[in-house]
Amino acid sequence: MAMKLGALVKHLDGELKNGDPERIIQGIAPFDHAQAGWITFAIDKKILPRINETRADAIICGKQFKDRSDVEKTLIIVDNPYAGFAKAAQLFLPHPPTPMGVHQHATVGESVSLGKDISIHPGVVIGNQSTIGDNVIIRANTVIGDNVTIGNDTLIYPNVTILENCQIGSRVIIHSGTVIGCDGFGFAPDGERYEKVPQSGIVRIDDDVELGANNTIDRATFGQTWIKQGVKTDNQVHVAHNVVVGENSVLVAQVGIAGSSKLGKHCVVAGQTGIGGHLTIGDHVTIGPKAGVAQSLEGHQIVSGNVAMPHQIWLKVQTIIPKLPELKKQVARLEKQIAAWTKAD
Amino acid sequence: MAMKLGALVKHLDGELKNGDPERIIQGIAPFDHAQAGWITFAIDKKILPRINETRADAIICGKQFKDRSDVEKTLIIVDNPYAGFAKAAQLFLPHPPTPMGVHQHATVGESVSLGKDISIHPGVVIGNQSTIGDNVIIRANTVIGDNVTIGNDTLIYPNVTILENCQIGSRVIIHSGTVIGCDGFGFAPDGERYEKVPQSGIVRIDDDVELGANNTIDRATFGQTWIKQGVKTDNQVHVAHNVVVGENSVLVAQVGIAGSSKLGKHCVVAGQTGIGGHLTIGDHVTIGPKAGVAQSLEGHQIVSGNVAMPHQIWLKVQTIIPKLPELKKQVARLEKQIAAWTKAD
Amino acid sequence: MAMKLGALVKHLDGELKNGDPERIIQGIAPFDHAQAGWITFAIDKKILPRINETRADAIICGKQFKDRSDVEKTLIIVDNPYAGFAKAAQLFLPHPPTPMGVHQHATVGESVSLGKDISIHPGVVIGNQSTIGDNVIIRANTVIGDNVTIGNDTLIYPNVTILENCQIGSRVIIHSGTVIGCDGFGFAPDGERYEKVPQSGIVRIDDDVELGANNTIDRATFGQTWIKQGVKTDNQVHVAHNVVVGENSVLVAQVGIAGSSKLGKHCVVAGQTGIGGHLTIGDHVTIGPKAGVAQSLEGHQIVSGNVAMPHQIWLKVQTIIPKLPELKKQVARLEKQIAAWTKAD
Repeated sequence: MAMKLGALVKHLDGELKNGDPERIIQGIAPFDHAQAGWITFAIDKKILPRINETRADAIICGKQFKDRSDVEKTLIIVDNPYAGFAKAAQLFLPHPPTPMGVHQHATVGESVSLGKDISIHPGVVIGNQSTIGDNVIIRANTVIGDNVTIGNDTLIYPNVTILENCQIGSRVIIHSGTVIGCDGFGFAPDGERYEKVPQSGIVRIDDDVELGANNTIDRATFGQTWIKQGVKTDNQVHVAHNVVVGENSVLVAQVGIAGSSKLGKHCVVAGQTGIGGHLTIGDHVTIGPKAGVAQSLEGHQIVSGNVAMPHQIWLKVQTIIPKLPELKKQVARLEKQIAAWTKAD
Repeated sequence: MAMKLGALVKHLDGELKNGDPERIIQGIAPFDHAQAGWITFAIDKKILPRINETRADAIICGKQFKDRSDVEKTLIIVDNPYAGFAKAAQLFLPHPPTPMGVHQHATVGESVSLGKDISIHPGVVIGNQSTIGDNVIIRANTVIGDNVTIGNDTLIYPNVTILENCQIGSRVIIHSGTVIGCDGFGFAPDGERYEKVPQSGIVRIDDDVELGANNTIDRATFGQTWIKQGVKTDNQVHVAHNVVVGENSVLVAQVGIAGSSKLGKHCVVAGQTGIGGHLTIGDHVTIGPKAGVAQSLEGHQIVSGNVAMPHQIWLKVQTIIPKLPELKKQVARLEKQIAAWTKAD
Repeated sequence: MAMKLGALVKHLDGELKNGDPERIIQGIAPFDHAQAGWITFAIDKKILPRINETRADAIICGKQFKDRSDVEKTLIIVDNPYAGFAKAAQLFLPHPPTPMGVHQHATVGESVSLGKDISIHPGVVIGNQSTIGDNVIIRANTVIGDNVTIGNDTLIYPNVTILENCQIGSRVIIHSGTVIGCDGFGFAPDGERYEKVPQSGIVRIDDDVELGANNTIDRATFGQTWIKQGVKTDNQVHVAHNVVVGENSVLVAQVGIAGSSKLGKHCVVAGQTGIGGHLTIGDHVTIGPKAGVAQSLEGHQIVSGNVAMPHQIWLKVQTIIPKLPELKKQVARLEKQIAAWTKAD
């Protein structure tokens, strides 16, 4: 896709400096790889001093370049250059393919409601009584259970599983291998064995959520496991039954959240962190990486370590841990000295 | 499904108090959500003092309510209210659908033995010489390799993979995305590169096992990887080649067990714990969460931490770790004081 | 498959001792399970003193047995008995089945180039413009996107997903449930919400790589995520966008590598270890298990712990951590003693 520089600047709500708005832009690439006819971006601090060195036709950058007379390149100055870059890159994505309708090798159940301009790829299986919104793309070999609802403009990658009664919002993206609505892990000990606790609830995924590959989001025992609007998860994230993840929270790769815990809005849980069950985490909490959270956390804080502690403390603790052998020797020396004196007393 | 209260009490081997056994019960729901015509349960300690506050027609509860004159509600008194609740909830699950036989969009290999009343959903692929028991349900797009055996009443969710020669017992449940019989991780260093060690063994899953979503259970190098009767695994659990997991053990989400380790009976391994290779863990051992086990463990103990230690010690250690900066300063102060005295000597 | 002992010895570049090269060998099995007509191997130190106790016809072993007059068994003496065993075991694998071509229940897109002697199993979906090399086996329900290239002799297990534009080398093995080319995790904060950073790069998998089950290998934002020749990954490994894994490195189960990090050659990353983003790890580095790597690492070292430290230090640290309660008491006693003296001064 090609577009005029002026239109691009307008789309980004930016300001053009040193440039011709009629110039045609054909793509976007990193600073050292962009060619003439393309745009690039200057976000990384290492790039900023080299601002004149790209071959790109224009550079998305921040307001600090507004009054810089030493910059001869064409600039697209925006408030938030990282978000500006993201929006610009979205413009140059390949056009989505023409909707294919329902492929002849897909299997669609009874009483399924199909929206307009959908693409149901080969090997897809959709259960009975499900509802698929407009412009939805369900890629190959994905399985949708009975009575599932999928909102408009949602994109589901290959080999995804969405089980009975789950509700998926609009503009949701679900990556391959992810399972939504598998049973929560509930077993009642009964003597030597376990009695299965039926999991009759659902998973609800709100609008604008993106779930990475090979996630597992368990259905609730009763009620719903709830991933709220704008949440983003990385790959191999596990969310147990009855968990609530608040709006715009971010779960990085291999995070696990145990049953019934509630995360607030705008949390960031870094990679390989585990959050115990039945906890409440406030809004704007950042956790991890590799942390273990065993207690509820008030909002607006950063914690790390296992068991999680304030991040500033963990930064100190992690420098002391490798010095524990020295600390132990130091204490032994002091004890010896004191013992000698005690004896001498 | 609806049933008489008296039949329900009998099924649970319980005792009815204050109630009419002819009353018709139509469902089960949590304490604050149950409506008239439904039953509920009182297990959570927070619920117990509020026993009279539900709208449910009857409450499953423990023996402590037997002689309580202040309770006006209908009670179903059982020895183990959590297990009683689980059994009751099972009764109200929707009826299983009528067996569909082999769907026309499934692919079944040669010399496959199919039991009675099976449901082989669309997109399922079954290899040659496999045996599928009675009442087995294999849901959409699951793949079964050659010469696999699956016992009666087993339920396999969509997008599961069970590879060659593996043996699955009766009443087993396998959740979506789980892979059984992938190659164990065996490579012999040979100069700069690795020589693959063929993995010719199998995976054996005994009766009444339930495996969560996106598990990976490796086949043995020789012999078998063995998940014994009644084992329950949560999501994203990894079991390496030649591991044995003893009867009724429980593996919580994101646990990994390295090659050739043997777990005893009735173990509980909490979330994100890792168990090293070639270890022996006794019966009734509880480990984790997020623990690292590097040595074999005798039975009947609880360990935590990385590297795993007795849980009572870990509880103390985890309170000291965040105070290490203070401990270090404290030691430095003592050293300074002693040094001053030594100098003064 | 059966073969003459002499041919087997020659294939292993070994030396035959006490044996008849014309003897027919029919299989390979562990020391205590091998029968007459089979070979076995002596690698485990516990086996070496029992070298005469097997029923096997011949034993693959190391040079330490060359001049041992007490051994009456037939020996196949090789430089590297573990690699020799692996090579021998490969010989006795079942013959690969006759190539099936494209199964009638597979779906192949437009302008796909198919090599000779391929097997495209039922339920496989291949996108447009993809290229499949000679002797490639793609097992059931695997999905290959548009414009994917797969080299000769590559084996892809069931339910794998390989997305658009990714490049897979020759002699690669990819186990079930693995996802290659899912989007990297890139989101630009934009006020309350996140703007998606399009991931337009690819994943490149070089020759002789083996990827375990349920891996997730993200495509690059720009350019490529690159798994170099001979890399082996275990199950549930996560590799983020723009990561490079050097030749013959090994990633054990449940490892996660964050975005843009570069691993050198011949690294070994043990189970459940996490490596942070934008780091450089040198050649021949061994990490973990369960380690957290937060800084770049020079080559040729072993690190462990969270945060990772030299392994020799971690070995000491892990013995001290469970003794922290005692250390704390010890320091408190010293402080009390010193305080008493200070008061007495």
